[in-house]
Amino acid sequence: MNTPLKIGIAGLGTVGAGVIKILQTNEAQISARSGRDIIVTVVSARDRNKDRGVNLGGLKWFDDAAKLADQDDVDIVLELIGGSEGVAKSLTENALSNGKHVVTANKALIAHHGTALAMIAEQKDVCLAFEAAVAGGIPIIKALRDGLAANKIKRLYGIMNGTCNYILTNMAESGRSFEDVLDEAQKLCYAETDPSFDVDGVDTAHKLAILASIAFGTEVDFESVYTEGIRKVSPIDIQLAERLGYGIKLLGVAKQTQNGIEQRVHPCMVPINSPINHVSGVFNGVVVDGDFVDSTIYEGRGAGAGPTASAVIADIIDIARGLRIPAFGVPAGSLAKPQTVAMSEHLGPYYVRLMVVDAPGVFAEVAGCLRDHNVSMESVLQQSRDLGEPVPVVMTVHETKESDMLNTLNDIANIEAVVEYPTMIRIQTFQN
Amino acid sequence: MNTPLKIGIAGLGTVGAGVIKILQTNEAQISARSGRDIIVTVVSARDRNKDRGVNLGGLKWFDDAAKLADQDDVDIVLELIGGSEGVAKSLTENALSNGKHVVTANKALIAHHGTALAMIAEQKDVCLAFEAAVAGGIPIIKALRDGLAANKIKRLYGIMNGTCNYILTNMAESGRSFEDVLDEAQKLCYAETDPSFDVDGVDTAHKLAILASIAFGTEVDFESVYTEGIRKVSPIDIQLAERLGYGIKLLGVAKQTQNGIEQRVHPCMVPINSPINHVSGVFNGVVVDGDFVDSTIYEGRGAGAGPTASAVIADIIDIARGLRIPAFGVPAGSLAKPQTVAMSEHLGPYYVRLMVVDAPGVFAEVAGCLRDHNVSMESVLQQSRDLGEPVPVVMTVHETKESDMLNTLNDIANIEAVVEYPTMIRIQTFQN
Repeated sequence: MNTPLKIGIAGLGTVGAGVIKILQTNEAQISARSGRDIIVTVVSARDRNKDRGVNLGGLKWFDDAAKLADQDDVDIVLELIGGSEGVAKSLTENALSNGKHVVTANKALIAHHGTALAMIAEQKDVCLAFEAAVAGGIPIIKALRDGLAANKIKRLYGIMNGTCNYILTNMAESGRSFEDVLDEAQKLCYAETDPSFDVDGVDTAHKLAILASIAFGTEVDFESVYTEGIRKVSPIDIQLAERLGYGIKLLGVAKQTQNGIEQRVHPCMVPINSPINHVSGVFNGVVVDGDFVDSTIYEGRGAGAGPTASAVIADIIDIARGLRIPAFGVPAGSLAKPQTVAMSEHLGPYYVRLMVVDAPGVFAEVAGCLRDHNVSMESVLQQSRDLGEPVPVVMTVHETKESDMLNTLNDIANIEAVVEYPTMIRIQTFQN
Repeated sequence: MNTPLKIGIAGLGTVGAGVIKILQTNEAQISARSGRDIIVTVVSARDRNKDRGVNLGGLKWFDDAAKLADQDDVDIVLELIGGSEGVAKSLTENALSNGKHVVTANKALIAHHGTALAMIAEQKDVCLAFEAAVAGGIPIIKALRDGLAANKIKRLYGIMNGTCNYILTNMAESGRSFEDVLDEAQKLCYAETDPSFDVDGVDTAHKLAILASIAFGTEVDFESVYTEGIRKVSPIDIQLAERLGYGIKLLGVAKQTQNGIEQRVHPCMVPINSPINHVSGVFNGVVVDGDFVDSTIYEGRGAGAGPTASAVIADIIDIARGLRIPAFGVPAGSLAKPQTVAMSEHLGPYYVRLMVVDAPGVFAEVAGCLRDHNVSMESVLQQSRDLGEPVPVVMTVHETKESDMLNTLNDIANIEAVVEYPTMIRIQTFQN
């Protein structure tokens, strides 16, 4: 057996405590799989007196996490503080610079600084690993980086935020509004007090940018991710989508197109029988399309102490086994500058809902707007006919350029009988 | 860049040709990910003149695959011959003994001789890798061995044979008989001329034994797998299962129970809304339950040149990157002798279909048989009432020991009004 591998944990929230719990519970097996013992030597957190449900006896304790970067009895720093700047960033930089491996669950940090941090790691011949940063317990980083490494990845998409998926699943099942369900999710602790990182799509965008980098061999490019959350998804659209054979999910989609890489996060209509539509509640699911392997699908819990700590420890075991794979699958210095495609260039089918009075009379005007921008209608559905009252009219249109779609919506909004700005949801099929 | 890694390929069927095609098509990217070039130097196959759709120019050719075991210009032998004995086995043994890595897609070989072969590999400090042996393009071996390594695996189950899943999916959609759909599958080349390895469950059993070894840290124990195929699945049972809220799938299930490890392959009724029931056609799907990660699910194509070769090359890239993980996750010498549980001890719910004449009169007798063996009925369904003609009566029973169930069926079969031996299908829920 080799010498033990010594761990310093910065941050003892649910994930940090979860890591200690798993290392204690499954100690013998983790040692056997690692080929050496894994021992926690040092921890750091703000409150020494908090009961975390795990035994911290005998561990060296620092109030200042920054100190973990240069301890002799730490081989791997677990950065579980969070946030893209501040202590999380400086600790990671310093630990790597001091020749220590860093394992992190911090998607914001990797989304913003992943390429630069990977550079430091490689200069020092240590690992920067972040399986836990994307999709919790699902080993999606390893699947992309190792399991599918023979393939050119054509596209990946997925549900990477359990809070949003819980809310959308619940809205679909109960017919309730976004606000109602968010409120409940907050009470159940499925959503934060300030839910904006989740429901506005930022969290998904972080994760998408990380996966896209590994998939396409490009620098992490969070800034280019088009991001739109789920606040505007309404029960009526969920209901109408269902009638058309679709579910509504918040997807992150990254795609290699002829003009460059498209990265986008927004509510999507997905075919009701597609695997991604079956991913419900707090579960996450990611679909990866490779040129030879075709579609592969990964599902599991995207958050929580157990699943996230499971991913953190998988990275530790990798390091214990001697694995030295560049953070993004290829050396950071050889990651290409991503050529990105603006969202206005996106091509795909769309769902549009208008609220109109006097629907029959308005069809010709709407059709004219579509024609003016070369938008081709696929179907139209008028749910009810209540003269005088606004009624929903729903259209789906064939593959259209986003900018043409937006211009069309602007024109439609100017029709007198259209009483509010049209609602638009992008449709994600197996093709686009 | 390190020195190139030299590959010798034994067997140029669809997978061997697929490997060459991917290595040529994605050459630059595979080199970047591997940190070195991967070059095929030697090949071996029976027919030199066959057009395989790939360029074999400049490659050394041996008619006798055994020669690949001791070539100086071969670092990795790809064993793509197949079969658990003969050339495949001796080539693998000799190549490992000569200090060459072996990558194989041969599930029969690993199911029968995996532990012994892993011992040789470890003595010589080389890799034995077989990602392609289970579930084709899905990186399930790496998920179990690496991604979920922090967990005690409680259970895994899956659809690991695309032929059977194609047949069952098609039977469910069309209402046709097993024989009809098998015939069509053979014409479409989804089933072999001799389909017995697939439809009798042997292929699934091979794969299950391999996954169970990694999951539970035990020696590969193919001999203990209870194996039952899909020949007896009939359209009427598929139809009735659907009415009860179930689909029928051929599953391989491996489970750690209090009394030891249960390994079984047989048709299962699974809840119609469960993720595994959504895996349709030739697709494979595997569910792994870990103690901390909870359920994770993996889906993709389980066969075909592209997906299988994708998995073979993933193993090659692992080796090129310097990965040296024991074949089954822990050193072969430390794999435990599996304590196996006989199928007669299996506990679970069951579906039973009787064909009876004069159904009302027979219920009391059937209920008596159940009572005699302490079997607790959950539901009963009589589809139609046609006095004089045999009609199906369908029951589901709560968790029951297999031996009790079989004894009950024997007793029921002796009831005069029961006109044929009862049909029994095990029910697989999320709990059992």
